[in-house]
Amino acid sequence: MTTRIAVPLPKSYLLLNHGPTVLVSSAHGGRRNVMAAAWNMALDFDPPKVAVVIDKATLTRELVEASGEFVLNVPAREQAALTLAVGTQSGREVDKFQKVMRSGIPGDGVGETAASQVGAPLIEGCLAWLECRVIPEPHVEQAYDLFLAQVVAAWADPAAFSEGRWHFPDPQRRSIHYQAGGNFFATGEAFEA
Amino acid sequence: MTTRIAVPLPKSYLLLNHGPTVLVSSAHGGRRNVMAAAWNMALDFDPPKVAVVIDKATLTRELVEASGEFVLNVPAREQAALTLAVGTQSGREVDKFQKVMRSGIPGDGVGETAASQVGAPLIEGCLAWLECRVIPEPHVEQAYDLFLAQVVAAWADPAAFSEGRWHFPDPQRRSIHYQAGGNFFATGEAFEA
Repeated sequence: MTTRIAVPLPKSYLLLNHGPTVLVSSAHGGRRNVMAAAWNMALDFDPPKVAVVIDKATLTRELVEASGEFVLNVPAREQAALTLAVGTQSGREVDKFQKVMRSGIPGDGVGETAASQVGAPLIEGCLAWLECRVIPEPHVEQAYDLFLAQVVAAWADPAAFSEGRWHFPDPQRRSIHYQAGGNFFATGEAFEA
Repeated sequence: MTTRIAVPLPKSYLLLNHGPTVLVSSAHGGRRNVMAAAWNMALDFDPPKVAVVIDKATLTRELVEASGEFVLNVPAREQAALTLAVGTQSGREVDKFQKVMRSGIPGDGVGETAASQVGAPLIEGCLAWLECRVIPEPHVEQAYDLFLAQVVAAWADPAAFSEGRWHFPDPQRRSIHYQAGGNFFATGEAFEA
């Protein structure tokens, strides 16, 4: 497992503030899944909340509805092939933890480790992790595929995020932003306005 | 006004997909305002929808609630000082179109031009614009400061976005991602997974 340190909950919004694409991991009743989600955002500071879109067609939707939990994992550039793979294959057809590319190697699975507060796993090799408990809002879930959740624990790779700041010393360990058609942007140069 | 071309509505989600910080402009009854919002995301493809967090304390909230409309403007790196300025001053205390820094020049105002479908203005010099009509959801607006809206027109600077793709030839005309404390990331290197 990637080294990780706890991020204080009122600082956890900073993990999503710059708009990275995330992996949504979920588990219920012995099943588990992971999908990619560009459509995510912070929703509140303290207690921290997040919003994420989870389509009705996905296995993730079924597992999140059944468990009321998920993890938002912030992947690194070196995980872009993995992010694309889990974003284009359905968990109904393949166990992504067994058969999806990892680090671009076909046949290798998605590494995972146990979370602290929820049943959904933490995806190995990511930059940060937000353990989330769904705030039930059946109408917006049904009408917009929109899930609101409270962040109940948060973690980060201290090489990439510490003391409330992202710092990306390794180009392959920057966060990523999905565009379309397999194309991403890396998080770019930091600057002060 | 920056040159702009219409973006087909089903492609408008691509303007937000990579998670940029936006400016939210609004107008009602002869008043107008602009604020910054890192907490925004696409919500649907077609008809296109967006979600954005608008705090109860803001003048923007009052104008959006009264008009049912807003524009999400995607600012360029050269507008980072403007983005920070409109994000840290209240429209209740200052007319940001008159007195907020533009391009970092104190005393210069925020340039604007008329939108096509909504009363809220388009902020000059931005990279893209999404004209939005609020989908009334009083409960989530009240409980989470969360506004859902349909995109009714979309525009982009063709030098930065055309044929469904961002391309940033000028480093000062890249989109930006707010971190904290006046610090941003520029949108970085494009790559294929």
